[in-house]
Amino acid sequence: MHDQSVIKVGIVGLGTVGSGTFNILSRNADAIFLKTGKRIRVSHIGARRDNPNVNIADSSFADEVKVSRDIFDVVKDDELDIVVELIGGTDVAKEIVTYALKSGKHVVTANKALIALHGNELFALAKANGVVLAFEAAVAGGIPIIKVLAEGLSANRISWLAGIINGTGNFILTEMKNKGRDFDSVLKEAQALGYAEADPTFDVEGIDAAHKLSILASLAFSVPINFSQVFTEGITEITQEDLQFADSFGYKIKHLGIARRTEKGIEARVHPTLVPNANLLTKVDGVMNAVMVKGDAVGSTLYYGAGAGAEATGSAVCADIIDIARGDVGSKEIAFGKKQNFISIDEIRCAYYLRLDVQDQAGGLASISKVLSKQNISIEGLYQQEAPEEDTVVPVVIITQRVEEKAMNQAIKKIEALDCTQGKAKKIRIEHFKS
Amino acid sequence: MHDQSVIKVGIVGLGTVGSGTFNILSRNADAIFLKTGKRIRVSHIGARRDNPNVNIADSSFADEVKVSRDIFDVVKDDELDIVVELIGGTDVAKEIVTYALKSGKHVVTANKALIALHGNELFALAKANGVVLAFEAAVAGGIPIIKVLAEGLSANRISWLAGIINGTGNFILTEMKNKGRDFDSVLKEAQALGYAEADPTFDVEGIDAAHKLSILASLAFSVPINFSQVFTEGITEITQEDLQFADSFGYKIKHLGIARRTEKGIEARVHPTLVPNANLLTKVDGVMNAVMVKGDAVGSTLYYGAGAGAEATGSAVCADIIDIARGDVGSKEIAFGKKQNFISIDEIRCAYYLRLDVQDQAGGLASISKVLSKQNISIEGLYQQEAPEEDTVVPVVIITQRVEEKAMNQAIKKIEALDCTQGKAKKIRIEHFKS
Repeated sequence: MHDQSVIKVGIVGLGTVGSGTFNILSRNADAIFLKTGKRIRVSHIGARRDNPNVNIADSSFADEVKVSRDIFDVVKDDELDIVVELIGGTDVAKEIVTYALKSGKHVVTANKALIALHGNELFALAKANGVVLAFEAAVAGGIPIIKVLAEGLSANRISWLAGIINGTGNFILTEMKNKGRDFDSVLKEAQALGYAEADPTFDVEGIDAAHKLSILASLAFSVPINFSQVFTEGITEITQEDLQFADSFGYKIKHLGIARRTEKGIEARVHPTLVPNANLLTKVDGVMNAVMVKGDAVGSTLYYGAGAGAEATGSAVCADIIDIARGDVGSKEIAFGKKQNFISIDEIRCAYYLRLDVQDQAGGLASISKVLSKQNISIEGLYQQEAPEEDTVVPVVIITQRVEEKAMNQAIKKIEALDCTQGKAKKIRIEHFKS
Repeated sequence: MHDQSVIKVGIVGLGTVGSGTFNILSRNADAIFLKTGKRIRVSHIGARRDNPNVNIADSSFADEVKVSRDIFDVVKDDELDIVVELIGGTDVAKEIVTYALKSGKHVVTANKALIALHGNELFALAKANGVVLAFEAAVAGGIPIIKVLAEGLSANRISWLAGIINGTGNFILTEMKNKGRDFDSVLKEAQALGYAEADPTFDVEGIDAAHKLSILASLAFSVPINFSQVFTEGITEITQEDLQFADSFGYKIKHLGIARRTEKGIEARVHPTLVPNANLLTKVDGVMNAVMVKGDAVGSTLYYGAGAGAEATGSAVCADIIDIARGDVGSKEIAFGKKQNFISIDEIRCAYYLRLDVQDQAGGLASISKVLSKQNISIEGLYQQEAPEEDTVVPVVIITQRVEEKAMNQAIKKIEALDCTQGKAKKIRIEHFKS
């Protein structure tokens, strides 16, 4: 056994988050020692190549860091107390984490895909080996949202949460809204700025957000992680027109991850959402993240900060390391209740924004209203662009009251079949987050 | 030794927060057991009288709760693991807490005044007795801001924090701003609504916020609590005129607690502050609280929620109880560094809003500008109301750039002495929270 006041950390993967983690632990070593009474030392790094943002020789750990090109050398290092997995991906990462847990080392990871897809199995493995698998950095970067759910609000029955949990998507929607630009041009800029990957699918199609939401929902409702049941819709179909129409009704369009406990089961869904301007989430712009959480005791709360970046995410990795160093791991023994039903998107209830191309306006609106009325869908607001002359096709926007999605979809089918409408209806969900 | 999976809690004081705490622990007992594997049982309540909001007979703890009219009977109960102090005040509360800690019981409190005035001594006492004194509920009600500072951002060097940490004051300023009402009428409403006490001094003069800020500053900068060094200015002098002028320059006036690390020492101050509309703090209305925290790694983050109320504050009390039940107390062993200099209000640097009553406008402005210029104070913006006729007294508002307060005060003295100005200048500090 080595000195209990020294915690030895191995870092696997020295990319963006790895460099941030190393640099924070090095720069703030004394401040962390003051707060915790523990010396947290990085003693082993596994990385295929050096990172120019990490200067080991000038760091607090210059004398002791071993660098291995074979990342498995790190997990095999029996001197380590904690292995930090920062290579991303789900194959090798899973091997690394499994090996580390089995050999009795605590693991800290920022890997949302790994936790979303294999978390249940890996938490069980951690428990069986008397160690913990900590993942604060997997969701919303530097915002301590995992800690908030698992500890800060631990006495609450959470009824719902809703978050802007993908910075790239939020950057794109913010630029589109504030500068009147189109999706493609902003996406290209996001790629140039390094916010979006060359293949932006994970961000703009909502898969990254769905990974994160599946983790949040699991903690909020004490159920196993259930990524396959997260409904996912991206932002690629959002147009300038939609943003402007939404604005005229007093809403912003945000790409949200929403999880809610209902009588029928758990809802978990990622999609563009009209949010009323009075809601704080509409003030979260650019690459910033925020998560709103509603608990039965605490009411509505919100947590805001940088969702990505070397040191913001590194801040979360280091918080987990410090918790483990302090022995504060009780909340990290993830205890799920029994599986619960996740309801399908057909069964959710919300309000809707519908944008239609309508010809023969007067009669057209009457037919559309009739269809909605037959499905018991109430109209909350309506906008019809003045037609320059008869029989011109003009956009009509309808804001509905809350209704089950199945009924909405049936109504849309019938509306699309009307003679007066052209093409497909655009449907965007609306949330008021009132209860 | 009793069963380790059962944690016995005694509640001293069954007022608003006491009732919320009891009701949460009772209602969510199963959910808390699921998450923690511990049965948290309220087994003793000390209260001079019953609380109609607490129905012990219908609670989860009906069979086991003992009620004592002498609150000291609770701290003397050797069956208890945790004593929850919710009587408020600083005299008897200190006795209760001291007794409990000395008898080896953990203590959870919502008492900001107690922690602000006696925290250093009581933390030392807790440590000496191998127990913890937890105080999440003492600041910002249900927002887990203590946990954020002590754990979530534990790897960061905090450079500043700024918070709306008194709901009553924020309610008053919000109503004044949104409805054009005056201070006195809103205060009366706040008292009728139960937001403000019959003696509102603690809220409107900023003393309550100063208690809380002294606690936040201590955690943020790892220094002993230093309530006596918190500069405190209330909101009683804020007028409708000030709110409107601020608005015309793009600011809202918020009553903030601000703590900042500077080269000269630590700033800790509570005062009305002009905050630019783009800052999220300006969107925090009514009785809600929010704290913005800037860390060197994480950047700017914000935490928002209800700052008061039976169950919101109870949520924080219960979170501390659950942490202790889980054994997650490492972060609760408060470790301060050495004392650091707190700088006086004279030494702070910020921008300023000045409102003056000026006669003889043309010449007057020239004289005022000259005074400012001589003190090296740059004018960022200026508003002068058109004078209906010559020699009328009209308000002039000046927004300055950042300057040391001492220089600002010297300039104000000279400006007040000018022939063209009447009465006192109104000075309100401006913060941009940029770095």
